Amino acid sequence: MDTNNPGIHHRRVGEVMVTALNDGAFEASTAWVSGVAAEDCEALLRKTFRAVPPRITISAFLLTVGGEHTLVDAGCGTAMGAPFGKIRGHLATLGVAPADIRRVLVTHAHIDHVCGLIDAEGQAYFPNAEVVLHAAEPAYWLDPANEAAASEGEKSGFHDARISLAPYAGRIRTIADGAVVMPGVSAMHLPGHTPGHTGWKIESGAESLLIWGDVVHLPGIQFPRPEAAMAFDKDVETGRLSRARAFALAAGTGLLVAGMHLDFPCFGHVARDGGGYAFVPEVWAPAA
Amino acid sequence: MDTNNPGIHHRRVGEVMVTALNDGAFEASTAWVSGVAAEDCEALLRKTFRAVPPRITISAFLLTVGGEHTLVDAGCGTAMGAPFGKIRGHLATLGVAPADIRRVLVTHAHIDHVCGLIDAEGQAYFPNAEVVLHAAEPAYWLDPANEAAASEGEKSGFHDARISLAPYAGRIRTIADGAVVMPGVSAMHLPGHTPGHTGWKIESGAESLLIWGDVVHLPGIQFPRPEAAMAFDKDVETGRLSRARAFALAAGTGLLVAGMHLDFPCFGHVARDGGGYAFVPEVWAPAA
Repeated sequence: MDTNNPGIHHRRVGEVMVTALNDGAFEASTAWVSGVAAEDCEALLRKTFRAVPPRITISAFLLTVGGEHTLVDAGCGTAMGAPFGKIRGHLATLGVAPADIRRVLVTHAHIDHVCGLIDAEGQAYFPNAEVVLHAAEPAYWLDPANEAAASEGEKSGFHDARISLAPYAGRIRTIADGAVVMPGVSAMHLPGHTPGHTGWKIESGAESLLIWGDVVHLPGIQFPRPEAAMAFDKDVETGRLSRARAFALAAGTGLLVAGMHLDFPCFGHVARDGGGYAFVPEVWAPAA
Repeated sequence: MDTNNPGIHHRRVGEVMVTALNDGAFEASTAWVSGVAAEDCEALLRKTFRAVPPRITISAFLLTVGGEHTLVDAGCGTAMGAPFGKIRGHLATLGVAPADIRRVLVTHAHIDHVCGLIDAEGQAYFPNAEVVLHAAEPAYWLDPANEAAASEGEKSGFHDARISLAPYAGRIRTIADGAVVMPGVSAMHLPGHTPGHTGWKIESGAESLLIWGDVVHLPGIQFPRPEAAMAFDKDVETGRLSRARAFALAAGTGLLVAGMHLDFPCFGHVARDGGGYAFVPEVWAPAA
């Protein structure tokens, strides 16, 4: 008997099959949150029956249209150890080989989003994939001056970004805000968490979905208190502005959203709730 | 590529692996709701981005402990047509054969809960299972006087109950409120929807779960407005009292609940919210 839950969830958006792929989860700390007191964070977590300390789930998304496969982020691969990197098994379950991935749309170059681009030997895990990301992202992470100026705690981020992108030299496409990178899929620059942090918007037929990357890390805290920022936000104030913009867009237009750290299977809507917001997970349904 | 979502979700409760099994879903109508105006129902559905008209999902639960398998309800089997009866395929996926089911704990004898007890020829689908249900349930449904007195619209319910229980003659165990039917599993009589409608409470180690049957059919409406009753509630007022009791218990004690018509995967908590309640779906996690 299978005693685990699959971590694979399909949600069709027009002609595009969007598949959420869970990569793992790790224990976080309310000490990583700025802008909201730790005791208030804990009260919010308990109010919604969440674990204290909170957990951060990691997911990536597979877009399949016309038989062509595109990933949005690549998970962490082998960089975070054995309980992580689960999307590789999920892709195998789905019958999608690494060589079948045509492109990877990257939200930003943190470990849990790009280290899955490489194998344990540092070679490209997706031999035929183009890597697409906002120009500000490699400009920041691949600049030796930035790395030299980084604190000891920040240096690993530069290393992760550098080794993950290196084997894709010659097949990295840098884009600007609003760029259409494949039919119906465009970039929405949401800077702050990192300089090039980008959401990917899918529009197909009458349906739309914004995969907003790391606008939210802790759903139990950041929806009711959007001012809550994370220790690993590079520019906290710019990140708050991007979160405010994304929340207002989703709540104002009813846009379906998904995020790498929303509760799996990661799809839902944003509603205004008192002075903050609430995440309304989409009701489960078969995909077909 | 698998283009459907599995409809199988494991949630360990102490020593018991509880597996939610989706049996299908059907379109409902706000005209089936009494106590809340149709336009208020629709506003509530839209507020939480749900389909209008609403959908009712059907699930059953598998309890596995010490290698022994117990079902809580049996889905509808072949009684509702091809898009339903999916739990049979899910059990096969899990490697659980019909002969492996030791007992079926029945919440009540409606079509989507008991018709899965029989095969298309009307024989017992679970050859080795005991059927356990509240004494008031067969007392009501198997009484020819009640069937004779029923309206034309109600008669099919008597037929469904009768044909589903008939092949289990000699291995039906009727119980009373509070009965312990296997280690750690007890009955909670929640009458109204039907006379013998019963929740099954699982207590194992430090954990508890109440599988409350049909206390709720439409989560988007009945949590915020618990007075909302359904056309197929036999005794609307008694059903409202049972719903109020179940909601107060869950919200007051933090008891984890599951229900046959809650949004799959059906597990969550109940919180007081304004004058009503809110369902807080449990955050997805691997089962292991």
